[in-house]
Amino acid sequence: MCPHIVSAFDDDLLAVQAKISEMGGLCEELLSNALEAVENRDPKLAEEVILRDKRLDKLEFEVEELTTRIMALRQPMAQDLRVLISCLKMSATLERIGDLAKNIARRAIYLADQRPAKLSASVGRMGQRTLQQLTEVLDAYTSRDTALAVSVWRRDVEVDEIYNSLFREVVTYMMEDPRTIGLGSQFLFIAKNLERIGDHTTHIAEMVYYVVEGEPLGDDRPKGEPVSLDGVGS
Amino acid sequence: MCPHIVSAFDDDLLAVQAKISEMGGLCEELLSNALEAVENRDPKLAEEVILRDKRLDKLEFEVEELTTRIMALRQPMAQDLRVLISCLKMSATLERIGDLAKNIARRAIYLADQRPAKLSASVGRMGQRTLQQLTEVLDAYTSRDTALAVSVWRRDVEVDEIYNSLFREVVTYMMEDPRTIGLGSQFLFIAKNLERIGDHTTHIAEMVYYVVEGEPLGDDRPKGEPVSLDGVGS
Repeated sequence: MCPHIVSAFDDDLLAVQAKISEMGGLCEELLSNALEAVENRDPKLAEEVILRDKRLDKLEFEVEELTTRIMALRQPMAQDLRVLISCLKMSATLERIGDLAKNIARRAIYLADQRPAKLSASVGRMGQRTLQQLTEVLDAYTSRDTALAVSVWRRDVEVDEIYNSLFREVVTYMMEDPRTIGLGSQFLFIAKNLERIGDHTTHIAEMVYYVVEGEPLGDDRPKGEPVSLDGVGS
Repeated sequence: MCPHIVSAFDDDLLAVQAKISEMGGLCEELLSNALEAVENRDPKLAEEVILRDKRLDKLEFEVEELTTRIMALRQPMAQDLRVLISCLKMSATLERIGDLAKNIARRAIYLADQRPAKLSASVGRMGQRTLQQLTEVLDAYTSRDTALAVSVWRRDVEVDEIYNSLFREVVTYMMEDPRTIGLGSQFLFIAKNLERIGDHTTHIAEMVYYVVEGEPLGDDRPKGEPVSLDGVGS
């Protein structure tokens, strides 16, 4: 194989990876800021998250353009194509995570006018756990660390469990004091957005595994118990 | 250009498109059945939806394998690459729509034990509207009909508005009778899943436009009013 072409492809790939790294870092920041906006009732920070999400959309578009150009120019072989396609999937997934952080920021703006609720702490815990999972899976992606990816993938069940217990907590809270229903619904949606970020995190873990090991991660991930409302009298 | 190669590429593309058509048809069916399972409190139909969603996952995997093989074998030019990449995005989007239909089916299983609520009708209307949008955008995709795609894209605002009014309806309902909080939360999540299917529908409309016209659809889509809880006393 001609070394010139190989190195040109590697340079191209580095340019794509640089954009994806920027996307990953931005996702972490947006999620972290959105959670802070919820916790501190900070609508200004929330507005910033909403604005900065546009950069993610632009980066996803740029990754797609660049990837197509590389494929057309370099005519890469199957293995390199797989890497490029995984870049496309990665950037699409990160763009979605950004959208979910933006949704949380939107809820934060609504919550800014509300009196604090004890639910904040539970949602905050779920948020920090989700953020930690995201950070770790991005590290696994950067360092092609399948052991870390599998560990993140297995731990998603814990995020699901926190979500399920939070769901029951919110519903109980709303039943005890119907004036909190509006507020509680917002917390439910924030929790749901976090759960979806957790799902995307496991997708990234699966991608890391697939790219490195060449085979899918399998289907035996433990799933959290489905939401049950037993005992809340609904 | 060698006609043999062109026609081989076209044959390959047809094979990919056939899988995507199967995915599109399956999505419509799963959503339609999930809505029926909610409306008729039919847990057996819901279980079927959950099982049949696996086929969508498998098809998405096959589309990716096939697309990579075509790219490696045929070394297509930029325009053909763009079409193949749009196939990858389309199959990923359809797989997600299937997941959302599966989530609705899961809620249907929970609802099967519940007494009927007047909310069913509103959710049913939103569901039928979402299904109709999905059917039309899949038609637009198959026939490369940008006018239809733009029309679907513009009408997503109506699904958002139905969602917002449903949200207020559910919250009011829960406040009037706290025993309905568990049930109401399930309806909120079904509506949220439908809204997300609506979002994916607009993504498909944007893809159709981009592939046919060669430029993005723009950013001026009217958005539904953000959820407001004014007047429900929260």
